[in-house]
Amino acid sequence: MTQPAPPTFTLAALAEQLGAKLVGDGTRRMTGLATLRDAGPDQIAFLANLSYLKDLTSTRAGAVLLHPEHAGECPVDHLELDNPYLGFAQLSRLFDPFLARPTGGIHPSAVVAEDARVGERVEIGPQAVIESGVELGDEVVVGAGCVVGSRSRIGAGSRLHPNVTVCHGVVIGERAILHSGCVIGGDGFGFAHDGGRWHKIAQLGGVVMGDDVEVGSCSSIDRGALDDTVIGNDVKIDSQVQIAHNVRIGDHSALAGCVGIAGSTQVGRNCMLGGGVGLSGHLTICDGVQVTGMSLVTNSIHEPGIYSSGTGAMQNAQWRKNAVRFKQLDDIARRLARLEKRDQEG
Amino acid sequence: MTQPAPPTFTLAALAEQLGAKLVGDGTRRMTGLATLRDAGPDQIAFLANLSYLKDLTSTRAGAVLLHPEHAGECPVDHLELDNPYLGFAQLSRLFDPFLARPTGGIHPSAVVAEDARVGERVEIGPQAVIESGVELGDEVVVGAGCVVGSRSRIGAGSRLHPNVTVCHGVVIGERAILHSGCVIGGDGFGFAHDGGRWHKIAQLGGVVMGDDVEVGSCSSIDRGALDDTVIGNDVKIDSQVQIAHNVRIGDHSALAGCVGIAGSTQVGRNCMLGGGVGLSGHLTICDGVQVTGMSLVTNSIHEPGIYSSGTGAMQNAQWRKNAVRFKQLDDIARRLARLEKRDQEG
Amino acid sequence: MTQPAPPTFTLAALAEQLGAKLVGDGTRRMTGLATLRDAGPDQIAFLANLSYLKDLTSTRAGAVLLHPEHAGECPVDHLELDNPYLGFAQLSRLFDPFLARPTGGIHPSAVVAEDARVGERVEIGPQAVIESGVELGDEVVVGAGCVVGSRSRIGAGSRLHPNVTVCHGVVIGERAILHSGCVIGGDGFGFAHDGGRWHKIAQLGGVVMGDDVEVGSCSSIDRGALDDTVIGNDVKIDSQVQIAHNVRIGDHSALAGCVGIAGSTQVGRNCMLGGGVGLSGHLTICDGVQVTGMSLVTNSIHEPGIYSSGTGAMQNAQWRKNAVRFKQLDDIARRLARLEKRDQEG
Repeated sequence: MTQPAPPTFTLAALAEQLGAKLVGDGTRRMTGLATLRDAGPDQIAFLANLSYLKDLTSTRAGAVLLHPEHAGECPVDHLELDNPYLGFAQLSRLFDPFLARPTGGIHPSAVVAEDARVGERVEIGPQAVIESGVELGDEVVVGAGCVVGSRSRIGAGSRLHPNVTVCHGVVIGERAILHSGCVIGGDGFGFAHDGGRWHKIAQLGGVVMGDDVEVGSCSSIDRGALDDTVIGNDVKIDSQVQIAHNVRIGDHSALAGCVGIAGSTQVGRNCMLGGGVGLSGHLTICDGVQVTGMSLVTNSIHEPGIYSSGTGAMQNAQWRKNAVRFKQLDDIARRLARLEKRDQEG
Repeated sequence: MTQPAPPTFTLAALAEQLGAKLVGDGTRRMTGLATLRDAGPDQIAFLANLSYLKDLTSTRAGAVLLHPEHAGECPVDHLELDNPYLGFAQLSRLFDPFLARPTGGIHPSAVVAEDARVGERVEIGPQAVIESGVELGDEVVVGAGCVVGSRSRIGAGSRLHPNVTVCHGVVIGERAILHSGCVIGGDGFGFAHDGGRWHKIAQLGGVVMGDDVEVGSCSSIDRGALDDTVIGNDVKIDSQVQIAHNVRIGDHSALAGCVGIAGSTQVGRNCMLGGGVGLSGHLTICDGVQVTGMSLVTNSIHEPGIYSSGTGAMQNAQWRKNAVRFKQLDDIARRLARLEKRDQEG
Repeated sequence: MTQPAPPTFTLAALAEQLGAKLVGDGTRRMTGLATLRDAGPDQIAFLANLSYLKDLTSTRAGAVLLHPEHAGECPVDHLELDNPYLGFAQLSRLFDPFLARPTGGIHPSAVVAEDARVGERVEIGPQAVIESGVELGDEVVVGAGCVVGSRSRIGAGSRLHPNVTVCHGVVIGERAILHSGCVIGGDGFGFAHDGGRWHKIAQLGGVVMGDDVEVGSCSSIDRGALDDTVIGNDVKIDSQVQIAHNVRIGDHSALAGCVGIAGSTQVGRNCMLGGGVGLSGHLTICDGVQVTGMSLVTNSIHEPGIYSSGTGAMQNAQWRKNAVRFKQLDDIARRLARLEKRDQEG
């Protein structure tokens, strides 16, 4: 990809930023991050996953970020740290050429309501719309083409990438990152059935998000019917996720791509939902639950642990035979029990 | 959430609007709706689901909307109605502070083609685009950042929330509600394979929607290849739904979040598809079919009823053992039959 | 649907365009395409799927595109071609009234950075935003409301439908078609866990797409963490698809609606993923693999072929019994083995 020139740092400066022990020449300048295998002499690499240990001895990196226990095997300068993956995360943000750029202010093509309250050093991109009564905290960035609906509030340091929609009456905490195409606060799916047709239930609640929430591209979080939909602090939501009305997600939980959560379900703290997981409505999922990819959860979960459903892929010819047998499974179980009984009697 | 001041109503006015029998003081003013548990003396609550009956005797609501059979247990003023959930739906719309607001007219930043035909009391939001030959019926609301493609028609009273895309040549009926990020009329997925590569089939059909259709956030309804994709009257579509080209959905059907329907499948009237359900292409699903969440339907369904597939979630350690056995299921069935035969012979 | 008047062609001109053998009157003018059953005397129909052979003898089409082996059964003028479905694809593009329209140039409401490099005959629609350092090749069309982020490059002849978001530093090849609401280059989902909370890993890679790629409505392709996410040539991606960071898709592969691919997985050339398929992260899928709808793939696949998982839908009452037995499946298998052993011993 093409990018603006990234910032450069000396090894000494990086060691100080990370609180790492430097072994080597602190004056060397690093221009970027790369893998152990690809890094050149101006780049810093990292060892955070032992499956890459084989690449350490042959690396041509300018320096390596690693745990002290692997320092002896490292052929080049290195920074020692207890959690090298955390160090990598910190480095990645230092080297991000897009975080460093100065604010663009309010673009003349943006439409900002007169009564909107806009904090200090806010950037509002071209063609963005800030409706009446909106509050934007200090250093908020609203990307090109975003719409922030009436009376919504966005906390300090939050960033809306281009073409995000925040509907009316939504509250977003500090340091949120909302990716392009996501929609926060569309109507929940609520209807009363009468006389053979559907009657809409106006969705009078909102969405309330804590601090440090991230929402991926094209994800949607629906507003509540009467009460709010609530997303806790430090909740991380990937792309293409659907969160229905009145769902509550506890702090520090992470939802991978294509997850769908039906209405009024409560997910605890520190939960991790794999890609494509579905949760039925009105469930309670306790703290510390992990659900593996594409599982369907139809009952509440009261014990922390790992949960799964479904079957793994196999060759289609083999699968067809087994899938047919699935339809006979209750019959198979009954026939087996009958045989066992005859065996015991006989 | 923060909102404009909602309208207020006397109990007598509400009773008249709903056609309900009022028991209590008709001059009391209600300022909003809440649950039995949360409602205060200025709010009206409702009892529509018997699992909340326990909250009735202790409610502090100003009034309760309920079925006459529960009137005796209600400690406060009440409105009696045969279908209290329908009454709640009607009340929710009365108390929606966003439905009552006056039209904003055409915002000066909107781009409206000279030959577009715009009805009476239409609102077109900031940065919206109305392309050539579009027709907007009376009282249509087009939100900020929406694009309505050339020669599309949108019926009276329809509302497009911000950042909706209606592509060219789409027909939308009256009173539609399209939520942010949804796309109506993107190309269907059609290619001919020849010479080791794909050759695009231009999608020459459109999308035709009946009246009273709702489409959720980030959902997509693709245009037809030769004929149109057709959505019936009073069809309700949740968020993150994908409807492929030449699908037809019958009147009054409801599709929950993350449903995916492949090309040319026909869904009957009064069907309900649970969250994440997938329908293969070229199927016929008859009227009155319900499919439970995350089921895959690969064959046509000719009998009304409830259909399901998949397996429920369980602890991962247990699941792993069972999932491995699924791959042996045909073998298990054959071995069981062999034992049964030996048992009969013996 | 309503459309501009489509172009018309003589049968002789169509035969020449397709390289087809014409049997009939080359001066007849065709105004459009339709199915064998619906086509009128001014329309050309096609026979590409033998299940429609029954409609051939009764067609009222002006002409039919078909394989020479069916020419004898055709009651009207016809064009003979070895691959009539390919011919249909070519005809569909000829008759597409939206491909023929002239460029609209750069709309005055669009915001185009001064340093953007814009090729010849480029069209940029109303309210679109072209950020700093962007390069648009010749004859690129950027629809209304699109945002192209800083330093991204879009190859000649590519078309972005309205409200597409291309984030910063993305490279798109020639003749791409990006449908409304799709997002190319949002952040991948990467965090380090430390101290009970998540620490963001800046996503420093980009997205690089080959030529002739199509991406459906509301799909998302995330940018890489360090390296790029890579989409090969002639890859076709349907609506509501999620492609995570550092995924690589080989040339000529096709992904149906609602597919989700987790991070760093590599999909080979000429693969076909059915609707709703999920691939776990860090897998390698070899060339020529097909996966049927809604299957979950959790292991790498090294042999071309068709793969599946899951179970087909059945009536809910029957399904409930079988799904309960699935939880006993390992137990059932063990009990069967025990009976078999006793049977052999006895």
